[in-house]
Amino acid sequence: MKKKNKKVNAAIIIIGNEILSGRTQDKNIAFISNWLNINCGISISEVRIIPDVENTIVSNIRSLSKKFNYVFTTGGIGPTHDDITAKSIAKAFRVKYGYHKEAYQILENYYGKSKFNDGRKKMAKMPIISKLIYNPSSAAPGFVTKNVLSLPGVPSILNSMIENCKKYLVRGLKVHSKTINLFTVESNISKQLAKIQKKYQKSVDIGSYPFFRLGKIGVSVVSRSTSKEKLKNVNKDLIKIIKYKKIKILKI
Amino acid sequence: MKKKNKKVNAAIIIIGNEILSGRTQDKNIAFISNWLNINCGISISEVRIIPDVENTIVSNIRSLSKKFNYVFTTGGIGPTHDDITAKSIAKAFRVKYGYHKEAYQILENYYGKSKFNDGRKKMAKMPIISKLIYNPSSAAPGFVTKNVLSLPGVPSILNSMIENCKKYLVRGLKVHSKTINLFTVESNISKQLAKIQKKYQKSVDIGSYPFFRLGKIGVSVVSRSTSKEKLKNVNKDLIKIIKYKKIKILKI
Repeated sequence: MKKKNKKVNAAIIIIGNEILSGRTQDKNIAFISNWLNINCGISISEVRIIPDVENTIVSNIRSLSKKFNYVFTTGGIGPTHDDITAKSIAKAFRVKYGYHKEAYQILENYYGKSKFNDGRKKMAKMPIISKLIYNPSSAAPGFVTKNVLSLPGVPSILNSMIENCKKYLVRGLKVHSKTINLFTVESNISKQLAKIQKKYQKSVDIGSYPFFRLGKIGVSVVSRSTSKEKLKNVNKDLIKIIKYKKIKILKI
Repeated sequence: MKKKNKKVNAAIIIIGNEILSGRTQDKNIAFISNWLNINCGISISEVRIIPDVENTIVSNIRSLSKKFNYVFTTGGIGPTHDDITAKSIAKAFRVKYGYHKEAYQILENYYGKSKFNDGRKKMAKMPIISKLIYNPSSAAPGFVTKNVLSLPGVPSILNSMIENCKKYLVRGLKVHSKTINLFTVESNISKQLAKIQKKYQKSVDIGSYPFFRLGKIGVSVVSRSTSKEKLKNVNKDLIKIIKYKKIKILKI
């Protein structure tokens, strides 16, 4: 993995009617986002959840692959008729779609020649220029096409493959974060938070998020920055306000 | 709520760095999508998760409000500096942003004049043409601007407000669904599923989703359609295959 001394960003495209319909609760967004930040210093800047419709996949791949350093897709790379991610990505980049030699070999070895039916063969079909993301759970590989990394939708399989994405990624600056949980309401500190945010406008992102715990209302103040030093300074400013306002901190 | 004898669709825009960073697991997408389909016959066609950045919010509101019948936004309507949804929506539609008389009154009554500070007053600022979505949990209302409905990001508060969206929505055709859980692998039925999908191409969506339960692998076959009759027919075709292939059904 190469290093880059600047911010590297990515988008996630979740392909799947089952997430849109509310039938399935997505678990991949938070996992990929956390993993990318901790392991690669890459931040997710946008997520889209779209249906299994070829034109929609094509147009989203085209626009997001231009806009961000990387695009991760999840879902739609299995053996059934609704798995159209690979074909759509080939179309988006106008590259040839067909049997990928290495993927074909992996799958044929895994299933054995006699059980390597058409459905299983379909999982070896992808843009033939793609590089493979090996799959230690169920053999069927993910693939990298230009700056687009395609993974399956099943969380346990995706999780087992994510380490194999590393070699295709350029490392960026890790975003560090610091959370303080306060027993107060947002409107009690909104003016002061705005002042601190203004002071560190370009280097720290400060967010505030209400929470409810043990029947009490609170606010999590989350500061995020690539500079640990600046996070410390923001924290000092926050502590001043907390002391001045006599706010109780929730220690977890 | 008026009725419409055709499909009505919507998009959801989740506004919030905390979801993108992976710090918070989204719970609103599945809730809104399920609620809309069951109660209003409205299907979610796209979801976007975007950061608290004005230009990004503005451009997404503009493009999605043209593309879909309704757009739901969640997050960014609280009292702090990072709550910029209302202002961004006003900008997207080029309408005046300021104190909304009715919202101001509601919040002033709720907090009492002496405790109605600037942070709390901010929650009464929105496009002045907006209509209110009343909030039984914490008073601060959501709002409807043209075809965009804005709700808070905290799931418990959002959930308590969702019924109050109904009067602003035109009802569409409900999408019914039927799930059969099979103890088999996708590649064993992929050819047959593709045939059935082709037969009902325009009226039924058939999806297949692997599952793992009690150490066994299975496939959920989910059929979705506005026609109960067609769903029944698809089901008959599926049962034929299941019997022919001697596949065990998981009864839940």
